[in-house]
Formats: sequence, structure tokens, C-alpha cells
Amino acid sequence: MAVYTHLGAEDLEALIAQYDVGQLVSAKGIAEGVSNSNWLIETTGSPSAETRFILTMYERRIDLDDLPFFLGLLDHLSARASPVPRTIHDRSGSASRMVDGKAVALIEFLPGVSIDNPTAAQAEAVGQALAGIHLASADFAGTRPNSLRPADWEDLFGSCGDKLAEIDPQLPAIISRALPPMLASWPDHLPHSIIHADLFPDNVLMLGKQVTGLIDFYFACSDITAYDLAVTHAAWCFDKGGRQFRPRIGQALIAGYEAVRPLSNQERAAMPLLAQGAAMRFIATRAFDWIDTPHDALVERKDPMDFARRLDFYAQAGPAPFTEAAP
Amino acid sequence: MAVYTHLGAEDLEALIAQYDVGQLVSAKGIAEGVSNSNWLIETTGSPSAETRFILTMYERRIDLDDLPFFLGLLDHLSARASPVPRTIHDRSGSASRMVDGKAVALIEFLPGVSIDNPTAAQAEAVGQALAGIHLASADFAGTRPNSLRPADWEDLFGSCGDKLAEIDPQLPAIISRALPPMLASWPDHLPHSIIHADLFPDNVLMLGKQVTGLIDFYFACSDITAYDLAVTHAAWCFDKGGRQFRPRIGQALIAGYEAVRPLSNQERAAMPLLAQGAAMRFIATRAFDWIDTPHDALVERKDPMDFARRLDFYAQAGPAPFTEAAP
Repeated sequence: MAVYTHLGAEDLEALIAQYDVGQLVSAKGIAEGVSNSNWLIETTGSPSAETRFILTMYERRIDLDDLPFFLGLLDHLSARASPVPRTIHDRSGSASRMVDGKAVALIEFLPGVSIDNPTAAQAEAVGQALAGIHLASADFAGTRPNSLRPADWEDLFGSCGDKLAEIDPQLPAIISRALPPMLASWPDHLPHSIIHADLFPDNVLMLGKQVTGLIDFYFACSDITAYDLAVTHAAWCFDKGGRQFRPRIGQALIAGYEAVRPLSNQERAAMPLLAQGAAMRFIATRAFDWIDTPHDALVERKDPMDFARRLDFYAQAGPAPFTEAAP
Repeated sequence: MAVYTHLGAEDLEALIAQYDVGQLVSAKGIAEGVSNSNWLIETTGSPSAETRFILTMYERRIDLDDLPFFLGLLDHLSARASPVPRTIHDRSGSASRMVDGKAVALIEFLPGVSIDNPTAAQAEAVGQALAGIHLASADFAGTRPNSLRPADWEDLFGSCGDKLAEIDPQLPAIISRALPPMLASWPDHLPHSIIHADLFPDNVLMLGKQVTGLIDFYFACSDITAYDLAVTHAAWCFDKGGRQFRPRIGQALIAGYEAVRPLSNQERAAMPLLAQGAAMRFIATRAFDWIDTPHDALVERKDPMDFARRLDFYAQAGPAPFTEAAP
């Protein structure tokens, strides 16, 4: 959460002049995104009367070859009335430009704020919105493999080596017990689609009960559709530390999802494994980042054990959290 | 430049409800300020039709006892048509509130962007705006001593000790040579007023040649008026590394200043010493922060030598940069 690159007024004015959005009025670097820099830009106005935009500069982790997929997906979903920001194309029609060797995109500003503690009604709306993008992306031509699948989690744990036990003495055993069934029985036979793959509350903008924006699609990829619901379930239905499951939130999330895209029996049966996999995916990246980040660095290290607790919950609970009746 | 505290939608909505500004529509943490967290807030609107505000949370370095001075000064200057953001008072009339033990203030949003490379016309406008706040603060009742005066610089260097030479082998000698005359002959007989004391380009918002905002008054204090012009001169009239003085910018800054508040002969005669002092003040705080900040921390360390070069320039140049004729 930082602005990694300094762009002065002169740089920003020159860039904004490449778009049909009027003159630059204000630019504030905003603390969003871990792999890019973002500015909230205000201009004198575009032909469609918009005056605010998000300018994103792609700094790290993102393969520039993936940018047409990410930006094309935003335009595709936005055109189908999903609450997703569209990209603003420059005067030559391009969705991205290069500034000092880095790619930038000008993106629609959407209202709304991120929720810390969702109500059931808010979780239901999030489920509906998630199912909405699964359906709306069906005719999207782009594809992108998921670079964070079970074999990739295994690789990440392998590169952590002996240091996993320094995070928590129990962590190696937790992984050794839970990972093999995921590697052996990952349900790739289930329907695939474009998935968001990282729909945490800070990637959802809401006004009251309404979802006004799904943002930060930079993990989006082609993968098992129901896995996206599992990721969202793990991200929304617990307290922050993963100690307390919130059954009413989980139920509302799934009910909202199924109101738009009902799960098949096969998908429902796979949810316990998919949810354990979702927890494992975040254990893997958090453990890797935990070891990779100096203790005194001024970036927040996210505790892998928050998701080890979720993994444990899903392993114990079995199908109960994913059945239609209230637990 | 960071957001140090997480405030979720629920926290923000509860806070905004304490002000007569409508409902929360958007909140983005912005990367401004080194001693506080800031959010750009959008609401459905205030009685005066404003919809955007800056929410500041005071985190570090700021003594809460100083807050009435800082916030009162903003209101005082804003009421006198200086381009300074006013504070929004809450329903009880208070300019600040407490959230989780930290003070917060809701502040007017001003348009404009910060300039990297000012033109002469822009420097002239900055000089005018600076003189404007010096005159407009004359009847401000608040006072605050400057905690960064020559004896304080000496203390900061003292706490750096032998490590000064690790920054640059020449730095101890530069300080030993230049600091004693400042301690012995600091021109405290000159007129005092409220000064900004930190008017770098990133604390000035501009649209074209117009100054639309002077911001970040958290070093403001009561001190020698002409010292503020010296700080601003050191901050605006060189390239970033302090290697190249830009005489036309310096001349325009002073001309703009004097168009609003002419310098007395005594003030003009003191400018070379005040400018060396301004450079020394930033050497002192940057050297202290340089030594205090881990090498691998993800915060930008500002090089003290950028201002050692400015100090050297001012010592060599004598009165020339501050005379009315073009150099």
C-alpha cells in the first residue's frame, strides 16, 4: 500500500493530455494496491462528464503481457453492467500507455467504501456480484492461467524451507497433512470461467447494501468457478484473525451467489476441499512474503496463521457451511 | 508518506456523521504527510455544497496541545482569503475530534497539483502567497515557538555524533564552519510573524500560474518573517540535488514576495545568513533522520548533502541572490 513512483504535475499533465478528459485539476497518490502505484485524478471533465479517474502505474509482479487481459476484462465486464471500472482509452484508442518505461492505465473512478464487518445483506450482495462476473465473463475472449494453483503453493512452501517452522512450529505439519489431498484430488473437472481470485473486502466498494465496485483484478485468471466463491467465503466470513467463523455471513454470501448462479451438486460437494485450498493459497503467499520481508520493514506483514485457522475450520466443518439450511 | 491507521467504512461513516456534510460516498487513503494519515473523503454534500474533504489523523511528531494553533491558523488565514484550507467544524463546533485515542480533523479539499520544476511565473506567485500569509497572520492570536532554531540544530547534530562523517566525510567540517556564526549572530532583532517554515513545492498546490493551496502547516510557528522566505528560497530555487541554483526562479520568488511585503534593508542584509540557516535546518533534520532510519526500510531517506550544497552556494554567493537586479 504505497506510491512507488513520483509523478510531478508536469508528468501528470503531459500524460492526461493524451486522453480526452479535460485539464488536470488535482492528483493525489492513494494508498491502494500492493503491486502498483495509484493516483486519484481530477480533471475539468471528459465528454461523458466524468471528472474523476484512477491512474494506475504497474510497478511489480505484473507481467506486462497480461495487461491486455486485465484491462480488456474490465471493459468487457463494465460493458455488461457489472460493477467494475472500465478503462479510459487514450486518443489513439489504447487502454494503456508507457511512462518512463512503466505501463499506466486511466481507469473509471467508482464510488463506495470498503467494509470491515459485513452484514448479511452486504455479504448477499457480494455473492450476487461475484456470480454476476462469472456469468458476464463467459463470452470474454481473453484467457490467463492461474499462477497460484496447488502445485504452485507446494513450490512456495518448498522455497520457504525450514523457515516455515519459525512462523509457527505447527505450520509444517498443517501443510503436510492438508496439501497432498489438494494436489491429488483438485476438482479440475468442475466448470471453469474467469475468476477474480482475490475478492477480499478491500477489493469491494459498497454504499450501504449495494456493491458499487469490484476492483483490483490483477489476480484474475481462468480457473474453477466455484474456487472463486471459496476464496470469497474464506475472505469474508471470518473475523480478521480467522478465529471465528460467522455462519450467517457465509450463508448469505452463498445464497446471494446462488440467486444469480446456482451451484451444481458437484460444485457444492467440492466446496469443503475448495475452501481448504483457498485457505492454503493464502497461507502459501503469506508465508513466502513473511519470510521474504525484513522484520523492521515498514510494510505490514500478514500473518499466515490467520488462514491456517480458516483451513482448520474448513477441515473440521465438512459440508455444513455450504449447505443451504442455516447451520 | 503513508496511511498509518486503518479506518474501515464503519469507522469513517460514524465519524462523518458527526459533521454536517452529508453521507459518506468514498474514502481513499492518500500518500501525503509524514506525521499523519490522510484520506480524501467524498460525501453527498455539505450545506455549502462541498462534497470533498481531507480527513487528517494526527499520528506522530505532533503535540496535541499544538492542534488548536495549527487548526485555528488554517481558519484564520482562510477567512482572510489566503489560499489555505479551512477546517470543517463538527456539529458541536469543534475543529478536531478524537478517534481511538487519536485526534482527527476534517479539512477543506483544495484543487491543484504540486510542481516539480517551477517557472518564474509560478515562483513569483508562490512569493506573493507566502507574503500574503505573513501579512494575514498579523492579527492571529495564537503563538507557537519554533522547535527547530539554531540551538536545536546543534542539538540534533550532537545526537548524530560520529555518524555524521558516515553520511559524508566532509559533513562535520561543513557544520563546524557554518554553525557558529548562526548561533552567535542569528538575527532575532528582525520582524517576527507566523511562518510556514516548510514551504517546499509539495506543500503548494497550483493550477497553471495560480497558487490554489498552501498546505501542511504542521511546522508553522512564530519566528523571523524573512527566515520563511529564506526557507522557501532554498526549497524552490535549486535542482533537487542542490547542485544548480536557478537565478531566475530566485529572483521571481523574491519579486513576488516584495510585491506584497517589501523587505526592509535590514531583512535584505540578513538574507545570506538566513538562507544558510535554512539550509542548515534541513541538513540537521535530514542527518538525524538518515541515521535514525534503517538502510533497508521502505521509506525514502532524504540526503542531507542536498542541503549542504545549498549551504555552500549561499556562503559563496553572499548578497547577490537577494539583490533586486538580475544576477
